[in-house]
Amino acid sequence: MHPIDKYITQIPDFPKEGILFRDVTSVTESPEGMKMAVDSMADLIKDLDYDAIIGLEARGFLFGAPIAYNENKSFVLVRKKGKLPRETIEEEFQLEYGSDSMEIHKDSLKPGMKVVIVDDLLATGGTSAAAIKLVERLGAEVVSVLFLVELKGLEGRKALEGYRVDSVVQYEGK
Amino acid sequence: MHPIDKYITQIPDFPKEGILFRDVTSVTESPEGMKMAVDSMADLIKDLDYDAIIGLEARGFLFGAPIAYNENKSFVLVRKKGKLPRETIEEEFQLEYGSDSMEIHKDSLKPGMKVVIVDDLLATGGTSAAAIKLVERLGAEVVSVLFLVELKGLEGRKALEGYRVDSVVQYEGK
Repeated sequence: MHPIDKYITQIPDFPKEGILFRDVTSVTESPEGMKMAVDSMADLIKDLDYDAIIGLEARGFLFGAPIAYNENKSFVLVRKKGKLPRETIEEEFQLEYGSDSMEIHKDSLKPGMKVVIVDDLLATGGTSAAAIKLVERLGAEVVSVLFLVELKGLEGRKALEGYRVDSVVQYEGK
Repeated sequence: MHPIDKYITQIPDFPKEGILFRDVTSVTESPEGMKMAVDSMADLIKDLDYDAIIGLEARGFLFGAPIAYNENKSFVLVRKKGKLPRETIEEEFQLEYGSDSMEIHKDSLKPGMKVVIVDDLLATGGTSAAAIKLVERLGAEVVSVLFLVELKGLEGRKALEGYRVDSVVQYEGK
């Protein structure tokens, strides 16, 4: 088990019964946890050539923004519908607990750009798959989908088949 | 005018007619803009003694997380109601466009801790004032409320009277 494990809190029955929620806010609350998380994620993609980090609202911002800052990359936001002020494109997707829609600014990526998508946790992969579609509709290329935590039991890698997936710590369950 | 101004996009009539929205996603999309924003904000608080950065959902995460990482501080989230998994306390507040409720984890701050509250933009100050109440209800002390952008015409400093307010760039209008 990766040492980041000790900073991740497990919350039973959140946001609904039967879900064991992996809480990364306890990671960021520890200066050592925050440093370990950001550095471990950045290390997984250190040999990749890319132009932008795509941060998925909202916990993807927690780790994606420091990586973009440290690596001198563009940081582009993917947000829930209605939150981004400029002209956007939109993708609907199924969540573990419901359905939703994500947007990206049309002018935030240029054709041929290479990007790394960042979120806190890979569950079913629905949000990340929608983000991949948004990136590709703008003509950019996804070189990695990067997570702090991966819940292997939810088989998110199947939803992301054909793409490189990186994660710092993996749990067997859901 | 601070040089960060050139990275901030102005969007007329977002999220509703009559509002001139200052868009900081164009700051983070530029590696130079991101570096300037984070470094300029950190510079304003460099002489302060504090333990934690409090990031306000969601754009406060963009700048607060890199500052916490760089300065080796705890990063604590204040989020919209229902998003935080552990036990929380809650504050309602009036927004420029409606009303809302913010939460903080009860165990994320200890009495006597000193904190800097970080958000992207000071408008009416309603969100920040609610965050101050949350911090103080946990027995911690606010040593600065730090913004990238301040809209002076909305008089947010009045809502934060008695507290130190820092901002990188100020605009006269609303």
